Amino acid sequence: MPRSFMTHLECPKCSETYDPGQIQHLCRCGAPLLVRYDLERARRHVTPDDVARRAPTLWRYRELLPVQHDENEVSLGEGMTPIVPLSRLGARHGLPQLYLKDEGLLPTGTFKARGAAVGVSRAKELGIETLALPTNGNAGAAWAAYSARAGLRAVVVMPQLAPEITRKECDITGSDLYLVDGLITDAARLVGQAVGQADWYDVSTLKEPYRIEGKKTMGYEIAEQFGWEFPDVILYPTGGGVGLIGIKKALDELQQLGWVGQRRPRLVSVQAEGCAPIVRAWQDRQRVSDPWDAAYTVAFGINVPKALGDFLVLDALYQTEGCAVAVPDSEILAAQAELGRSEGLFVCPEGAATWAAAIRLAQSHWIRPTDKVLLLNTGAGLKYPETVAASAPTVPLDGPLPLAGRGTHH
Amino acid sequence: MPRSFMTHLECPKCSETYDPGQIQHLCRCGAPLLVRYDLERARRHVTPDDVARRAPTLWRYRELLPVQHDENEVSLGEGMTPIVPLSRLGARHGLPQLYLKDEGLLPTGTFKARGAAVGVSRAKELGIETLALPTNGNAGAAWAAYSARAGLRAVVVMPQLAPEITRKECDITGSDLYLVDGLITDAARLVGQAVGQADWYDVSTLKEPYRIEGKKTMGYEIAEQFGWEFPDVILYPTGGGVGLIGIKKALDELQQLGWVGQRRPRLVSVQAEGCAPIVRAWQDRQRVSDPWDAAYTVAFGINVPKALGDFLVLDALYQTEGCAVAVPDSEILAAQAELGRSEGLFVCPEGAATWAAAIRLAQSHWIRPTDKVLLLNTGAGLKYPETVAASAPTVPLDGPLPLAGRGTHH
Repeated sequence: MPRSFMTHLECPKCSETYDPGQIQHLCRCGAPLLVRYDLERARRHVTPDDVARRAPTLWRYRELLPVQHDENEVSLGEGMTPIVPLSRLGARHGLPQLYLKDEGLLPTGTFKARGAAVGVSRAKELGIETLALPTNGNAGAAWAAYSARAGLRAVVVMPQLAPEITRKECDITGSDLYLVDGLITDAARLVGQAVGQADWYDVSTLKEPYRIEGKKTMGYEIAEQFGWEFPDVILYPTGGGVGLIGIKKALDELQQLGWVGQRRPRLVSVQAEGCAPIVRAWQDRQRVSDPWDAAYTVAFGINVPKALGDFLVLDALYQTEGCAVAVPDSEILAAQAELGRSEGLFVCPEGAATWAAAIRLAQSHWIRPTDKVLLLNTGAGLKYPETVAASAPTVPLDGPLPLAGRGTHH
Repeated sequence: MPRSFMTHLECPKCSETYDPGQIQHLCRCGAPLLVRYDLERARRHVTPDDVARRAPTLWRYRELLPVQHDENEVSLGEGMTPIVPLSRLGARHGLPQLYLKDEGLLPTGTFKARGAAVGVSRAKELGIETLALPTNGNAGAAWAAYSARAGLRAVVVMPQLAPEITRKECDITGSDLYLVDGLITDAARLVGQAVGQADWYDVSTLKEPYRIEGKKTMGYEIAEQFGWEFPDVILYPTGGGVGLIGIKKALDELQQLGWVGQRRPRLVSVQAEGCAPIVRAWQDRQRVSDPWDAAYTVAFGINVPKALGDFLVLDALYQTEGCAVAVPDSEILAAQAELGRSEGLFVCPEGAATWAAAIRLAQSHWIRPTDKVLLLNTGAGLKYPETVAASAPTVPLDGPLPLAGRGTHH
């Protein structure tokens, strides 16, 4: 029995197919390629019960992942992040079935580890020596870490405004890091120019087919952790949108495998008001988005003015009867604070945006009290210290501590 | 069948017993109290196979934990952190069976989450409303988070020099945070004074019996993840030493349960040369340590000049034929960098100290090439940005990227 039931790569736009044994990037028509599997054969060889007995990493779904040989699996122990019920918060806002999947508990502290683990594994399997990518920070840090783990060289280009900790992650894992005084789209242009001249493997979002396979494991885990069914609503902070595309791909594959029923979760794309190209396109019922001018949000990971996979994100929203919501930075920071004080979670601003959006959707009755609602927190707040202002008093060495407290507790 | 097989609290020094249904702190003789279980009865009711089928959190060992009612379990999804093989690093240093358990992948980014999860759960179960603790930062952040999750108030006192991110964690989770211009021992004195006057529950290291029960789950997991046997050597960065005491307690309990054999891992206490009271006591074959003067190390979490449980740490070293090793900060930072570049791991300096110590012990042949060696990384490097100097060049918006690279890759 093979480790992986991958058969070929396919263009979701023009249906052209490609050999996964060769290095592939975009389809000739310009669209991203998706990995396809022999799901009929896979379902005869592996069951949810088999999966349940495996170690709690994303590699428990190895038959539905593209890595063909065990020795190419590059792992730092990623996957099976917890889903925590938010009972107190949910009760307060009329959402008694509210949950959060905490992707901050992955190596490098964000969900980017999933795409990097599978992407770097496949790069290694294909004999790559140097890979390159533009990033808003966290993807670069993740690919740098997994490249070091695999013994590959990583070239990372990120905006100067990207979270500072991600520079340090690139440094300590020995990658070649460059900064640009611009946006991720500027970084992408520089990478695109360089890979044309050097023997580098371009792992920009969706420009190679395997990152999305790592991201889709979020969908597999969500289904497994809820007893092989999806919740009613999944809110996802959308920059490049690969995670949302991945969750939709997981849904399609799991339905074909017969591991979940035919009911679909409504997928919600959450963006910041300062950069909301998907929201605007969804409101106008467009199939693709227009680039967003003068993009800026505190949730830097979703500061993406134009996503290559925008049409796949919009397809996923339309096909699941989902929606797209933009929230202002002020509500993002308020949501982050509420998650901290009410549930003890220190989430990244991108993750907090999903809670801000859920509050709005509950108020407009788009989310109903009977819905099972899942927030996707894509990373640890630890990576965003600048989003929290800490001002603690210093007490004298001989005391006393003020017994009445500071009055900050809720 | 009860959820927990806890029977009583016992003093490891004078054997006095106490009722766990009441709030308890130290024994009348001044020593910390340990939780005891009816292990004979437990072994008839639960097996490793039962455990294997449960969700990957530390609560999979619930029969051997002190929480008696499900509704008091305060969880953010903590536990079952990965153990990653370090093949490249091990081969380079003549340690072909080298592993690292990555406690950075816990809520709040450090192993402190284990003690806080179980400690706060029991505090809730005992009806506590306000708890207080001194901390070098990470424990305070963890107890603040779990207190928020439980709806309790936390009073946290930490040195001004503690990692800045831990202040922000305390802030966003709504705790009462105070700073002192001194060491953790100064913070402890202030907390001690205050709890005498206010109705606060003192959760200082080992002053309540339940934090150690959370920490011991590291030992349970290590055994389970290695197929219910311990590796030959476990290196642990030692500040207060509760994790090491907990691992030793896990060993004793698992042997009594018959879940592991009688072979014992050699436990190694790793400290920094700038604060090494346990190492000095071990070298002098003392049963307790003397306070360390002018303590300072970049590995701030182990900057503990005198630990309340020092005699338990030293007992564990003597009983397992372990040892204690001090390493200078320069070797700690070099070890951190090597783990990053060679294996893609960004560990905290305390965790890096274990690798620095392993190199020394391999050179002195105390660790043999046939030994299975486990490093315990107690936290994420993400919480220590100041330990990494990142200096990346900015490239012009019109490029080009230097194709030859920066020469930083190993």
